[in-house]
Amino acid sequence: MKLLEDRILADGEVIGGKILKVSNFLNHQIDVAFLDELALEWKHRFEGVKITKILTIESSGIAIGASLARVFGVPLVFAKKHQTSNVNEDVYSAKVFSFTHDQYYNVVVSKKYISKGDCVLLADDFLANGNALKGLIEICKSAGAALCGAACAIEKGFQNGGDELRKAGLKVESLAIIDKMDSNGIEFRKEV
Amino acid sequence: MKLLEDRILADGEVIGGKILKVSNFLNHQIDVAFLDELALEWKHRFEGVKITKILTIESSGIAIGASLARVFGVPLVFAKKHQTSNVNEDVYSAKVFSFTHDQYYNVVVSKKYISKGDCVLLADDFLANGNALKGLIEICKSAGAALCGAACAIEKGFQNGGDELRKAGLKVESLAIIDKMDSNGIEFRKEV
Repeated sequence: MKLLEDRILADGEVIGGKILKVSNFLNHQIDVAFLDELALEWKHRFEGVKITKILTIESSGIAIGASLARVFGVPLVFAKKHQTSNVNEDVYSAKVFSFTHDQYYNVVVSKKYISKGDCVLLADDFLANGNALKGLIEICKSAGAALCGAACAIEKGFQNGGDELRKAGLKVESLAIIDKMDSNGIEFRKEV
Repeated sequence: MKLLEDRILADGEVIGGKILKVSNFLNHQIDVAFLDELALEWKHRFEGVKITKILTIESSGIAIGASLARVFGVPLVFAKKHQTSNVNEDVYSAKVFSFTHDQYYNVVVSKKYISKGDCVLLADDFLANGNALKGLIEICKSAGAALCGAACAIEKGFQNGGDELRKAGLKVESLAIIDKMDSNGIEFRKEV
């Protein structure tokens, strides 16, 4: 999506070869009107899919999830991160490895808020190795909920998460896929 | 605000005398259309105030903050929680005590996103002792930003945070103030 690619080029900052900082519009300071435009693009890409719930993970997925919940007219649920494995029987949980923080954490969702009749659209700001999404997928499976797909703003195409999930049959819609980035610039994957 | 009081009565769950669970519409599963209605009420209550930024804390303030940012047409900034005191010179930080988790944490905001010309509206889902808000206030003061007020959804009026901040001169607009709650029911403060 050109709008997002242009914004990344204008406001993003590449640190080393792996980190892209977009904290002035996406995940620290948030341009809500901009997120609403992204949400409309996802609405178009998931046209005709009977989504009943948006599922994301705290914290940086929440604002995107809220914009999505608004355009689809469904509730947003955000999974909570727990550093301990002290989870109880009222929740679905999954263990996720964070490369950013180099540690495992648990993501949990109350059993009340995801259930068998749901068709869930996953949402997040970044997709790299796909570990966070895999945690959410595990939670949906535990709940017996159907997966409608995943809406991610920025995908690091040079890591394998997105392509792996697509191969497994998930409809993954990232609005900007970065195939290469370094101090010389950012190369986006061409949209097909 | 009757809309919020009615929703609390319909969907809230009082646990012991101090905990009110509203996780099915406010801070785990989120009814975004409902938050948008709360935001319109805040828009009305802060009519004529030249707000330039909404400031909240991850995680449960973010969705409310996003609805506020939309109605006021300004960016949302969310402060991040760090358990360590390892903060650097690029951020403003404040130490906050959490009664819920019985521990101190640091809240940090990048110096890029709050500055002298700003007039900041603080936002959060709950206001009890006011510790989170006091942390955000400290950050605004460090940045030299002006404070426009605070928009909180639910205030526990039987704790002192809200009234203390009002006495100190802050315009605190909570949409439902609970003066008493126990297994017999919830008593709201009358609006004046």
